[in-house]
Amino acid sequence: MVSIVIVSHSSKAAEGIKEIALQMAEDPELKIFSCGGSKGGGIGTDPDEISKALENAYSKDGTVVMADLGSAVMSVEMIIENMPGGKGHRIRIADAPIVEGAVLAAVEASGGGDLKKVLASAEAARDMRKIEGG
Amino acid sequence: MVSIVIVSHSSKAAEGIKEIALQMAEDPELKIFSCGGSKGGGIGTDPDEISKALENAYSKDGTVVMADLGSAVMSVEMIIENMPGGKGHRIRIADAPIVEGAVLAAVEASGGGDLKKVLASAEAARDMRKIEGG
Repeated sequence: MVSIVIVSHSSKAAEGIKEIALQMAEDPELKIFSCGGSKGGGIGTDPDEISKALENAYSKDGTVVMADLGSAVMSVEMIIENMPGGKGHRIRIADAPIVEGAVLAAVEASGGGDLKKVLASAEAARDMRKIEGG
Repeated sequence: MVSIVIVSHSSKAAEGIKEIALQMAEDPELKIFSCGGSKGGGIGTDPDEISKALENAYSKDGTVVMADLGSAVMSVEMIIENMPGGKGHRIRIADAPIVEGAVLAAVEASGGGDLKKVLASAEAARDMRKIEGG
């Protein structure tokens, strides 16, 4: 099963988004890892924590990363490029809103979707409308 | 100044999103209120908590609400419709991704943007790209 990593500038946000996605997918097999906040616990991202989350999330089926802001995406990109042994090969960063994308990715992954499908589901969240007629 | 209310299915996510938006806006005058989670503390929303947050956030300049999923939007819509004394008149729900929209709305509100502008900034987050060439 494709795994998911949530990277936010806030550890609380990352944990909360993981909670919501797990609840919506309702699948105990689904693996979601969250990381967020700077080393000191403030707003930011910590490359060591991101590396660890990506390693923990490793799945031969692949991993989709949800990040909140462009700077988090850049941190993840750098870490993936420098992963040893080609481990970064099956990791994709979704160009999608973090909360809405995480929920759609979680549902798709738990339904058995492959890496391409889980990524596409996450990115479909860009077109999500929350208000009728909106 | 326009105020902002974050409504998520997770209290941790709501608090974390508030933290990120406050940090990005860097404006001590900016008022952001967060609410999230069901009455029992699980994943969901609590109408009483949302009502309270909307009342606390009341500003004559208006309030923009960021909600995570459609069901949160529906809860907020019902509460706004039933607010006494026309207090709901200057509250708008953004049809936008909650994290990315909250950040853009916070920056616009702290810059002195009016209700229309803050709402438009939040909704511009739908078109945000996080990955170059994405």
